[in-house]
Amino acid sequence: MDPDFSRLDDLLSEEGADGYLVDDTSHNSTQKYLSGFDAHDPFVTLYTPERTVLLVSALEYGRAKKQSRADEVRRVAEYDYRELVSEHGPAEAKARVHAEFLAEYDVSSVLTPERFPLGPADGMRDRGVAVEPEDSDRVAEIRATKTDEEIAHVREAQAANEAAMRAAEGLLEAAAVEDGTLVYEGDPLTSERVKEEIEVTLLRHGCGLDDTIVACGADAADPHDQGSGPLRADEAIIVDIFPRSKTTGYHADMTRTFLKGDPSEEIREWFDLTHEALDAALDAVEPGVTGADVHDVVCDIYEAAGHDTLRSNATAETGFIHSTGHGVGLDVHELPRIAPNGEELEPGHVITIEPGLYDPSVGGVRIEDIVVVTDDGYENLTSYPVELVV
Amino acid sequence: MDPDFSRLDDLLSEEGADGYLVDDTSHNSTQKYLSGFDAHDPFVTLYTPERTVLLVSALEYGRAKKQSRADEVRRVAEYDYRELVSEHGPAEAKARVHAEFLAEYDVSSVLTPERFPLGPADGMRDRGVAVEPEDSDRVAEIRATKTDEEIAHVREAQAANEAAMRAAEGLLEAAAVEDGTLVYEGDPLTSERVKEEIEVTLLRHGCGLDDTIVACGADAADPHDQGSGPLRADEAIIVDIFPRSKTTGYHADMTRTFLKGDPSEEIREWFDLTHEALDAALDAVEPGVTGADVHDVVCDIYEAAGHDTLRSNATAETGFIHSTGHGVGLDVHELPRIAPNGEELEPGHVITIEPGLYDPSVGGVRIEDIVVVTDDGYENLTSYPVELVV
Repeated sequence: MDPDFSRLDDLLSEEGADGYLVDDTSHNSTQKYLSGFDAHDPFVTLYTPERTVLLVSALEYGRAKKQSRADEVRRVAEYDYRELVSEHGPAEAKARVHAEFLAEYDVSSVLTPERFPLGPADGMRDRGVAVEPEDSDRVAEIRATKTDEEIAHVREAQAANEAAMRAAEGLLEAAAVEDGTLVYEGDPLTSERVKEEIEVTLLRHGCGLDDTIVACGADAADPHDQGSGPLRADEAIIVDIFPRSKTTGYHADMTRTFLKGDPSEEIREWFDLTHEALDAALDAVEPGVTGADVHDVVCDIYEAAGHDTLRSNATAETGFIHSTGHGVGLDVHELPRIAPNGEELEPGHVITIEPGLYDPSVGGVRIEDIVVVTDDGYENLTSYPVELVV
Repeated sequence: MDPDFSRLDDLLSEEGADGYLVDDTSHNSTQKYLSGFDAHDPFVTLYTPERTVLLVSALEYGRAKKQSRADEVRRVAEYDYRELVSEHGPAEAKARVHAEFLAEYDVSSVLTPERFPLGPADGMRDRGVAVEPEDSDRVAEIRATKTDEEIAHVREAQAANEAAMRAAEGLLEAAAVEDGTLVYEGDPLTSERVKEEIEVTLLRHGCGLDDTIVACGADAADPHDQGSGPLRADEAIIVDIFPRSKTTGYHADMTRTFLKGDPSEEIREWFDLTHEALDAALDAVEPGVTGADVHDVVCDIYEAAGHDTLRSNATAETGFIHSTGHGVGLDVHELPRIAPNGEELEPGHVITIEPGLYDPSVGGVRIEDIVVVTDDGYENLTSYPVELVV
């Protein structure tokens, strides 16, 4: 099932542009989404209300015809690209090919993503095409609402994620404690070792991931610290995993906080409060509610318990110092925002809810589920238990 | 040791520009190389002959100060970015910040990479900065010559690569043959299974890789086919592995061709001829020789044996149908080219030599080593044996 691109049509008509043009690899999620095609080298997608057309190299032509969602696929060779390169160099050759390609579809003005490449844009402008970068992020807005197929992709990535979380928790469980440090098979159990186990498990389940957070103690108090070195007993260990399926490109995202040994009263309180904030925020999720509303629910709970939030203190460095969540799809962070400026939730939004508390003198606690907004509430795509002590 | 940027200074002076500007994440190798900094979100690097300055978010500031090679690190907050966003939106805010930042360093004209983002470029132009994309690829030229530290990074990735190749070969060795298909632990041994083993082994050695080629029979006859499905006995299996170190970002690259069972006379001849082409090309590698010369050595050998090459037949679909090699560094494919238009080799170039033969009715054979050009020849960074039958 194709996504609903009518909001992109609206944008084109508002801005008086004939089409929307992307020139990028499929690592750019807008490119992958519009084209429905995977390629490591940049290629061009022209979207118009009538059709989607790809312009690719000869090498990608057969695959693009089979795999993309485009109505038509064209090859640069049809525009004598090679000859133009020998005569004018690659930049000018590309400009000529793009301009001729657009003219063929009666497109003389295009909107592009804000980060469309400058060289090709200048080349088209020099040949009379109006090229305007747009920062409304309209395709990202459209991407926020997932089709059933996309939700199935996220579900699949989340299954891999839960296997990886079990592998991580398994290592913590199996570890012994010597002098306050976790020890596994005779060596100190490090953040790096746990991450390796997570990433290997993800690979075995068809997912890749370049970054994983396994952060202990003061490391965990910085939400952007990925963690390093030996893990310690009696300290909270944040494990945040956000794999990407190697086949579909869709992500999942989940965080659990574990502790080997005995939690301090404070960490126990933080954990229970964060679990309460998670449940309350989830209860608030339904169509029509905004991401801002859901974020407020979490701030209310933390503030009532005496913690700083960025709502109560914009420069807070301890307490609840990030937003409540974000959309998840081809990008691990995408719309909608579950944050002060968060959009209205709609059925098909896939979002995280991830309250947390941070203080270098205590550590960090975060619990994160991933859910899909349904017609009358949400479905939780996460089934991993929420338990502190391993 | 810092790279030698004098060729970039020359370009700036030729083009009459005050500086070279990059606005990208460190996934862009030019950005990573110029800044010496890793970040997932886009940041700005200004290079001038006098200094390199980074412009980053508050979040990245501390890390950038510690880790980057920049002489100065500035924060967008110093330019009231947040206030400008509330007043003018993010695109206009970014334009104002960039223009003010450049003015502070007396920079009123910049060259940028060809694929610099259009929105920020337009924003700076609107504020009087001359922004010109350049397609000379000067930074890529500079990147071609590696420092000792960079060569050590490639060597490290290659060690992981050889471990992964051993793991792959080990699976092929351990497999039984049933009805012409390889079987491992009761299941057909597939391309996917071997790739998983390769990628897990790379992870265990600190490297990541999203793509691996394990292609058998007719699949292997298409150099761009990554291979899929059950592996068959008596057919050539191309294994091409190009890992990227997760810590340094540098790549390695190696290909071996294996065969389980009995090779046909033709495959045996192809393999021996390709091994001969590899050795002859390596013998030709030294400073002053061009990549084109080395490519010619391979074409000479294949053509003398009666095979088509792209040199003898530009539209050949069988025979030696790609170039002989490429530079390897932060990108797996970078300068210099070992191809018809290949540059003069210089000490410090890290290159692959990868002759191969392809025909869907026979299969594919490719052997690839990675070497560094030295003052009087080359050092082979590859120690993996070259043997067909496992």
